[in-house]
Amino acid sequence: MALKLQKKELIFLILQFLHEKKYTDTVHKLERESAVFFNMPYFEEMMHMGQFDEAQHYLLAFTNLKANNYSRKIFFEIRKQKYLEALDKHDDVKALEILKKDLKVFASDNESLFKEMTQLLALNDFREMAPLSTYKDAETARKLLTVELKKLLRANPLIREKLSFPDFEPSRLLELLKKR
Amino acid sequence: MALKLQKKELIFLILQFLHEKKYTDTVHKLERESAVFFNMPYFEEMMHMGQFDEAQHYLLAFTNLKANNYSRKIFFEIRKQKYLEALDKHDDVKALEILKKDLKVFASDNESLFKEMTQLLALNDFREMAPLSTYKDAETARKLLTVELKKLLRANPLIREKLSFPDFEPSRLLELLKKR
Amino acid sequence: MALKLQKKELIFLILQFLHEKKYTDTVHKLERESAVFFNMPYFEEMMHMGQFDEAQHYLLAFTNLKANNYSRKIFFEIRKQKYLEALDKHDDVKALEILKKDLKVFASDNESLFKEMTQLLALNDFREMAPLSTYKDAETARKLLTVELKKLLRANPLIREKLSFPDFEPSRLLELLKKR
Amino acid sequence: MALKLQKKELIFLILQFLHEKKYTDTVHKLERESAVFFNMPYFEEMMHMGQFDEAQHYLLAFTNLKANNYSRKIFFEIRKQKYLEALDKHDDVKALEILKKDLKVFASDNESLFKEMTQLLALNDFREMAPLSTYKDAETARKLLTVELKKLLRANPLIREKLSFPDFEPSRLLELLKKR
Repeated sequence: MALKLQKKELIFLILQFLHEKKYTDTVHKLERESAVFFNMPYFEEMMHMGQFDEAQHYLLAFTNLKANNYSRKIFFEIRKQKYLEALDKHDDVKALEILKKDLKVFASDNESLFKEMTQLLALNDFREMAPLSTYKDAETARKLLTVELKKLLRANPLIREKLSFPDFEPSRLLELLKKR
Repeated sequence: MALKLQKKELIFLILQFLHEKKYTDTVHKLERESAVFFNMPYFEEMMHMGQFDEAQHYLLAFTNLKANNYSRKIFFEIRKQKYLEALDKHDDVKALEILKKDLKVFASDNESLFKEMTQLLALNDFREMAPLSTYKDAETARKLLTVELKKLLRANPLIREKLSFPDFEPSRLLELLKKR
Repeated sequence: MALKLQKKELIFLILQFLHEKKYTDTVHKLERESAVFFNMPYFEEMMHMGQFDEAQHYLLAFTNLKANNYSRKIFFEIRKQKYLEALDKHDDVKALEILKKDLKVFASDNESLFKEMTQLLALNDFREMAPLSTYKDAETARKLLTVELKKLLRANPLIREKLSFPDFEPSRLLELLKKR
Repeated sequence: MALKLQKKELIFLILQFLHEKKYTDTVHKLERESAVFFNMPYFEEMMHMGQFDEAQHYLLAFTNLKANNYSRKIFFEIRKQKYLEALDKHDDVKALEILKKDLKVFASDNESLFKEMTQLLALNDFREMAPLSTYKDAETARKLLTVELKKLLRANPLIREKLSFPDFEPSRLLELLKKR
């Protein structure tokens, strides 16, 4: 009996094959270009490594800043972390660029929050501002943030159905081809 | 009859001599180091040329940021102009440096004003903020500011008595020496 | 009869599928990670766009700077072009970085050539140096260089056998799976 | 009896007065603008402090790069030291700027020397080049250089007659004015 093979199923089979062959970059590119599977461990890894631009680029295959409140919050929080890390490294040039290029877009949602973020530029240490006084270091903050983002991703209707991978036997694509 | 020559009078005589010989840099250095004469035309010229650091350096020979309200206002306004010009040239790095190094010192006097100045960093054009909407260009702003500063200088007790030069005849120092 | 399917053949089938679905980024990542096929049109495109770092990254999946004389020449010429373009844009900082990070490694092969390249830093226009007097602009130079590099790639034993793609019928992978 | 007071003599009298009043900046400005006296200790001090631009600015009141071989050598050696210090601090941007703005002007005198200096840019440490292998640090090099420059200044016909100050009694200018 012929397999009613759908494009989506084939992509999962290819993802499995590429993963088994350890073609990791290709795996993540295909996840992104096909958008059939959101790889949470990969997303977590990018967040822990501070690869915020890569993480956002990956997210953009599945959603965008305006899609819904979950997505908006996710992008905002990633950019805020990127901003805080630039401030903490006293890289004012980069911080100001992030403020204007990445965070300003959220100013219409919450103007007073944006103004508060701008004020941080004038401080020597953003921990002087009350809500940030508990910020320890980049590593700790990234971990706390990732826990938060995982909740938002699982609650996000655009992501939650793309979090599970079919339960294939090993080397399923090769087996299917051999069986002919 | 012996001249009761005082140090201050001799300095004026030397200033006249140096001025007649067109040793202009020396004239202004001596004005600064002796602090017997505040050269208003020279101050105006620096302001019109946008030589804000030089203007402040000159001022510091006669007063300082904390001396009185006139002086405080004078320094604040010069630094604000320097800040606005950096913003207007989109030199964000310099603007942020001016904010933190030059303007932050005034934050304790007027916190809300300092916060407002910080907000300008996040704008593409500071004219978006109401009180600055009439700012034309650097040249015009410098002229308006200089008019304002001249009033503050003339009202400033530390400066106002140093604004007039004795009414010497030409080449007075040489004449005095020849008369012996 | 069972297909004696080999990993390499399957990768070609997957590349065809990804190409048909227009998953272009994934295609090039898989070309790179599997190194079964060198995509000359893609390489040409990167060169024409001046994406020199990406072009080198792609090349490194198939060969390296020391592999043979063809490869050495290919990498040297790409880096030289990158250097000349930085000089031509008067981006001295970048040019000097390219000289020290990218080109210095070839100094042991040809010391006088490296010294000549260093001399270019002190010129206002590298066209002052005789062999470069005919350099027109980046676009023209990239095209001439790409013609040259294609010859070197086709002559390079590490590349030449990876330049052809199997002659599959359309959607070959899906057909094979349906045939079961 | 009337003093046949000449401008030059009066300037020396004023310099003495300013020196006694510790108006040091004014003293050096007047030395510069009048060019009647080359203050060797001041020049040495600038060299020891690494104030190479200030030292050259001072020199330019008395001579210039093309005036004679002594002057040419003096300017070249100061700029070379400035260049070596930038290289030693790995400030490649500044080093390249010095090469192009300050040193290139000497290339016509000695092309091979200029080429050699350019080569230094490509080295990680200029001490790799034989004639510079004994360079210790900035402080030591500045001291050795200053000894050399003092010889060149004393031999330079444009400077050597301006190295001595008249043998005045203390407060000579005030005394002369009182004596009337």
